[in-house]
Amino acid sequence: MRLTRFTDYGLRTLIFLVAEDKGKRVRVQDIVECFDLSKDHLIKIVQRLAALGYVETIRGKNGGIRLLCEPAEINLAQAILELEPTLELIDCEALSCRLSSDCRLRHILGEAKRAFVEVLRQYTVADLVVDRGALRGQLGLP
Amino acid sequence: MRLTRFTDYGLRTLIFLVAEDKGKRVRVQDIVECFDLSKDHLIKIVQRLAALGYVETIRGKNGGIRLLCEPAEINLAQAILELEPTLELIDCEALSCRLSSDCRLRHILGEAKRAFVEVLRQYTVADLVVDRGALRGQLGLP
Repeated sequence: MRLTRFTDYGLRTLIFLVAEDKGKRVRVQDIVECFDLSKDHLIKIVQRLAALGYVETIRGKNGGIRLLCEPAEINLAQAILELEPTLELIDCEALSCRLSSDCRLRHILGEAKRAFVEVLRQYTVADLVVDRGALRGQLGLP
Repeated sequence: MRLTRFTDYGLRTLIFLVAEDKGKRVRVQDIVECFDLSKDHLIKIVQRLAALGYVETIRGKNGGIRLLCEPAEINLAQAILELEPTLELIDCEALSCRLSSDCRLRHILGEAKRAFVEVLRQYTVADLVVDRGALRGQLGLP
């Protein structure tokens, strides 16, 4: 049971932006190097974060990305639900499963998923950065 | 966020066995046809269910598989933890992530995962089969 790397990197990108000085434009290349990602993949993630209104992308030589929201305004459950293609734990549709729509497995997994999401709903991106100084050190920021 | 198809089919196989008459040997081919699975994949799943002690496999012309436990003895959290290769929601190791071992994201996802597992721990495979007659009809059993 894994979140996609898209979601994982999306969250790491938000953490990186919170670690940076507020309002500072961050180069995509800096995030790529910090987390050792593929640039193409990160660009897609940044486009998605921009479409969701979390970040702004600025083109050009001095371009980059910056956070548009306060970290405390980005709810973790909401961000994960937006980034993750699905939170359906099993694929009931694609297999044309014979178990009917009142399948108990699907119901119970749904109940477990809701408990999972409810925990995340209590946190925001600000909770991911408790000690900003220590985080900057970890990320190699000056 | 998906469980693997291995786990998904493992649970469906247990459901199929509960739908069958107690102690009856079920042919792998019957489960393959019912759920439209790959036989190779199902054989691996059955081997795993046997290694876990949930089912017994009998070789030969009249061979097959049968449930070794009462459905109420198979806890859903335990079975999923045993079948699923990982419940770690993000891959902290493979990426040699710079965020240290006290990464808040990992802690919070761990808390959410525990809430997920705690819900499953309240259920057994018996809870997946509320109306055995209806289930037999759905599975095309006589």
